[in-house]
Amino acid sequence: MLSVGVIGTGMIGRDHIRRMTSVLAGVRVAAVTDVDFDVARSVAAFTGAAFRDSGESLITDASVEAVVVCSWGPTHEQYVLAAIAAGKPVFCEKPLAPSQEACLRIVEAEAAHGSRLVQVGYMRRYDPSYRALKAVLATGELGAPLMMHCAHRNASVPGFYGNEMAITDSAVHEIDMVRWMFGEEITAVQVLRPRRNSHGGELQDPLMLLFEMASGAIVDVETSVNIRYGYDIRGEIVGENGTASLGSLSPVRVRLGGKASDPVPADWQERFQTAYDVEFREWIDALRSSGRTSGPSAWDGYAAAVVSDAGVTALRTGERVPVVLAERPELYAPETPT
Amino acid sequence: MLSVGVIGTGMIGRDHIRRMTSVLAGVRVAAVTDVDFDVARSVAAFTGAAFRDSGESLITDASVEAVVVCSWGPTHEQYVLAAIAAGKPVFCEKPLAPSQEACLRIVEAEAAHGSRLVQVGYMRRYDPSYRALKAVLATGELGAPLMMHCAHRNASVPGFYGNEMAITDSAVHEIDMVRWMFGEEITAVQVLRPRRNSHGGELQDPLMLLFEMASGAIVDVETSVNIRYGYDIRGEIVGENGTASLGSLSPVRVRLGGKASDPVPADWQERFQTAYDVEFREWIDALRSSGRTSGPSAWDGYAAAVVSDAGVTALRTGERVPVVLAERPELYAPETPT
Amino acid sequence: MLSVGVIGTGMIGRDHIRRMTSVLAGVRVAAVTDVDFDVARSVAAFTGAAFRDSGESLITDASVEAVVVCSWGPTHEQYVLAAIAAGKPVFCEKPLAPSQEACLRIVEAEAAHGSRLVQVGYMRRYDPSYRALKAVLATGELGAPLMMHCAHRNASVPGFYGNEMAITDSAVHEIDMVRWMFGEEITAVQVLRPRRNSHGGELQDPLMLLFEMASGAIVDVETSVNIRYGYDIRGEIVGENGTASLGSLSPVRVRLGGKASDPVPADWQERFQTAYDVEFREWIDALRSSGRTSGPSAWDGYAAAVVSDAGVTALRTGERVPVVLAERPELYAPETPT
Amino acid sequence: MLSVGVIGTGMIGRDHIRRMTSVLAGVRVAAVTDVDFDVARSVAAFTGAAFRDSGESLITDASVEAVVVCSWGPTHEQYVLAAIAAGKPVFCEKPLAPSQEACLRIVEAEAAHGSRLVQVGYMRRYDPSYRALKAVLATGELGAPLMMHCAHRNASVPGFYGNEMAITDSAVHEIDMVRWMFGEEITAVQVLRPRRNSHGGELQDPLMLLFEMASGAIVDVETSVNIRYGYDIRGEIVGENGTASLGSLSPVRVRLGGKASDPVPADWQERFQTAYDVEFREWIDALRSSGRTSGPSAWDGYAAAVVSDAGVTALRTGERVPVVLAERPELYAPETPT
Ligand SMILES: [Mg+2]
Ligand SMILES: [Mg+2]
Ligand SMILES: [Mg+2]
Ligand SMILES: [Mg+2]
Repeated sequence: MLSVGVIGTGMIGRDHIRRMTSVLAGVRVAAVTDVDFDVARSVAAFTGAAFRDSGESLITDASVEAVVVCSWGPTHEQYVLAAIAAGKPVFCEKPLAPSQEACLRIVEAEAAHGSRLVQVGYMRRYDPSYRALKAVLATGELGAPLMMHCAHRNASVPGFYGNEMAITDSAVHEIDMVRWMFGEEITAVQVLRPRRNSHGGELQDPLMLLFEMASGAIVDVETSVNIRYGYDIRGEIVGENGTASLGSLSPVRVRLGGKASDPVPADWQERFQTAYDVEFREWIDALRSSGRTSGPSAWDGYAAAVVSDAGVTALRTGERVPVVLAERPELYAPETPT
Repeated sequence: MLSVGVIGTGMIGRDHIRRMTSVLAGVRVAAVTDVDFDVARSVAAFTGAAFRDSGESLITDASVEAVVVCSWGPTHEQYVLAAIAAGKPVFCEKPLAPSQEACLRIVEAEAAHGSRLVQVGYMRRYDPSYRALKAVLATGELGAPLMMHCAHRNASVPGFYGNEMAITDSAVHEIDMVRWMFGEEITAVQVLRPRRNSHGGELQDPLMLLFEMASGAIVDVETSVNIRYGYDIRGEIVGENGTASLGSLSPVRVRLGGKASDPVPADWQERFQTAYDVEFREWIDALRSSGRTSGPSAWDGYAAAVVSDAGVTALRTGERVPVVLAERPELYAPETPT
Repeated sequence: MLSVGVIGTGMIGRDHIRRMTSVLAGVRVAAVTDVDFDVARSVAAFTGAAFRDSGESLITDASVEAVVVCSWGPTHEQYVLAAIAAGKPVFCEKPLAPSQEACLRIVEAEAAHGSRLVQVGYMRRYDPSYRALKAVLATGELGAPLMMHCAHRNASVPGFYGNEMAITDSAVHEIDMVRWMFGEEITAVQVLRPRRNSHGGELQDPLMLLFEMASGAIVDVETSVNIRYGYDIRGEIVGENGTASLGSLSPVRVRLGGKASDPVPADWQERFQTAYDVEFREWIDALRSSGRTSGPSAWDGYAAAVVSDAGVTALRTGERVPVVLAERPELYAPETPT
Repeated sequence: MLSVGVIGTGMIGRDHIRRMTSVLAGVRVAAVTDVDFDVARSVAAFTGAAFRDSGESLITDASVEAVVVCSWGPTHEQYVLAAIAAGKPVFCEKPLAPSQEACLRIVEAEAAHGSRLVQVGYMRRYDPSYRALKAVLATGELGAPLMMHCAHRNASVPGFYGNEMAITDSAVHEIDMVRWMFGEEITAVQVLRPRRNSHGGELQDPLMLLFEMASGAIVDVETSVNIRYGYDIRGEIVGENGTASLGSLSPVRVRLGGKASDPVPADWQERFQTAYDVEFREWIDALRSSGRTSGPSAWDGYAAAVVSDAGVTALRTGERVPVVLAERPELYAPETPT
């Protein structure tokens, strides 16, 4: 039984607490905290966990074996660094930190510590469809991957959703995914601005992102965040001999009124429910069996931040923006993640 | 250029005349006739064909090289027999004749003539999807065919459509198709009567037909003639190693309002347009190149009538009804049609 | 935390123990037993559960709140009856008991007890695709269900698999599923014997089962247990306005060598993994929240046994066999399960 | 009966002659010519057409009502101009002419003539799937089109296929198609060069083309010409409310060996057979009924040449290249083609 402390009891924090108390075996929530003490106390009472009055005190609590960080993005760095200082495994929701500099400080702290403690919440690596895609690639039957076509579509976004969020919040999942899928870094980014969707008002939506990979492969990503029909994630890898795409996951096909139709998921919770469960399942199992985490690393969080920053610059300038990464510490070297 | 005489200028006759004058190369309509002289004269004038005042005079007209019979079913026998007597190829719309006895007289007349002149209008043998299915079967990779699951669905039927028409008019296409697909005769028929579709009032709809094939294979056919959503024809052959089914033929896939949907054809004209064109294309080409027809034969028309009769008896009695065919003349022996 | 005792530590028992210890939150395995004491002791040690030397002593163990029966079929009755006698909830793997008489004794015992304790392991009711199908039916947009076409295909079966097992072991899942799907009883069964698959030697495979429902709806079920290509479960409900079928669940689509292809599951474990997890998830949650089970009942287990027996008779005789059920106790009356 | 003269009896010319003599009603081939007199004489003899010893004499032949130009690209201009001079309708295979200057001279000659005589052989406008896509767009239910994702894949290309042919020979079909689909001009082109497919040796393959439309919509086109698995043409329009894509056109679905698979066409002949037939069917019918052609115009041929040139420059330079068109003559103004 892994004892976990959760920092941040907002929507995502509570969902992970539910996952760890009501869904998954082998884990318990030992302590919780939040900037809003009332909420944290209420969640603690409901869950049977201890309330702690700060992230730092939660991290150093002897009953806490591992930490989950779901607090506001700007606070991630301090809690992750504190967990590293305490030598405790820490699962940090994406983004690892709001700036690439902050991410790099975490990378350096973990490298100095000398073993991996940090996992970042990029759950697509745990989605059965993306894993099936990677498994096809791994057989080699497609030959080398040359291109990937992706789409990231939301039915709608809230009013505070700004231009850059299509990159920093939505496409960042594709950024992590293609690095993992191709097993290499993104080296440059370009962002095109198509005709605007009138549902988004002044929002620059959709976007088309173009990633150049270290091998020369090119990835295009459509982000559409007001497309109304549903939440739809698409991906097709183009290899030398053929292609592989995310498949159809329709539980039911209905023939009515001149149409044969398959339902489309309404939102990311529906689409990636299983991925989140598997993500935590494997994190818990890894910590219980080896004490080590093997999912998206601090380096992955850092690289995603650098590419995301390049994307934002590319969006602003219309230019192709090279991605410049710091030197990768040995700790992250022989990476074949997840 | 094949010169054709058309007997019957009703809806189907006019459609075939359109096909032979406006769509297909290598054929002309030389003469037409109909019980309604005014209609026939008007079609003749429009088409540039001669009007003839009887099927018999059309058949013996020296300018007519081949005959197409689209008249009322009860008149088919006399015209087909007259064409055989005249030694002219004759394409007869299904049914070959309204009774198995009449069909058998045609079979015997053609056998006495000594070579094939008659082709019956079972167009599914010319449908690209059914042909692809038969081609898969022919590779042998499925192993022996053991079962076939079929569905024949119409959005609605006219008011005069009676119980037996689901067999004699609709399922008769499956009767011919499975004989051709499996290359063997149907030996017994059973008909089940599911709960009635309220759209059909007192009509016994849907039905479930069960055919036993000579090899022991079993074919089930759903007929639904008031199913509203469209015209849908389905078929899956179950072999020893796997299955093959009629594929998806959707020109476009639309994602809107929570659904990804494919259009369903509205009616048989839309679904089998190409099959009709190919049917005539090949009939014309066969007659022009060899003078011989190779499509569904008088024997096929007879066998369909016998199985259809058995189906009607099975529907009335609820019993399994054996199919008893006359001895097959040598003329139809080494048949591997189309 | 629900404390469960498991009777039977064979393959299925161990899989459920794994599920309750390593996968699902909120449950612990308190005690285990098996006819093979060595195996049971070893499983107990590995799991941290107590070993008990009989099903009866396990059931009456104060630490056991609920019982899972995974022992050999002929022993089910005694353990289920003992659990009822002890007033403890019991999950019994299918079949509830090997004879309809034994099942009826359980029904009567539970009815005498006066509240539901028994749940039978028909996991399809928990499969997301079957649930989506039932949800479409529940909207009413299809109109009344008139037919259902099903197929149950296994790539291969072990040598001891005999003729009747296609009904008692395979199609019994469809028997339970259609009762649940249509919300009504099966009233008669017929079994057709198609041409044999040569992969099965003397085995009568495939079969075609025909179920008549109380409403008059008809269900056909193909069972193919040597079809090589994979494990494939199909189902299409035919309603008055349209149809709904189990959808496509392909994680990936590969285009290679002239084909665009989707993987087919290898076996039932792969296909129904999620259904088993959800089945236990909901059983545990129901017991923890209300102390009551709501899944497939003893009556469902009894009805499945009666229909299965009728199917075996129909297979032997070739006749249509009516299904005659005992009177349903009030306890199971207003049933709209799961 | 339309009497057509064909200039060029190479592979494509002979295929169109076959189409006009053996497939389509209402047309005859009156005369043929070719640089290779022997081939032309032999085709003439086989077809029953007259042999002419030059394109010019064929065009002015009184028996020729309309001209089809299938000769070597560099000769297109002179024959099309000659046909315009003779006031005869002319169908010219793509490209209209090998340079945009030559295309413009044709445009100006036709504009001076004052009515449309020229149709260019962009057959995709006649493909049922592309038409279905355009029909969905025309309903307005997608809202405004914002993006389109396209792929143009060939299994392999001949040895003489050079870098620019992916644009001038392959993507030129997408160039015409998107102008027609969106009903507006392409205003700029960018070409990205992904990692090379090793099957193509030094060939820069695949490519990714990016078109900016006058409305601001963006179109991406993958060209892969050595992808082995088959000939595959893809297209998805992204609108404000949803998307529409070219559908699945699989005649058969085969389940074998762990896979459910659909065949992929082998080449463009198989994929676009119907489109070619419809293209000529409608050209012939239009000329017979109104004497006017309504398909892809000389302006369309010119615009395709300009965009294609811009694409070649973009490929060479790596830069975004604006498309600069001459002023469009009134003749082509109220264009809603096909
Ligand atoms: Mg995440
Ligand atoms: Mg027909
Ligand atoms: Mg079960
Ligand atoms: Mg063309």
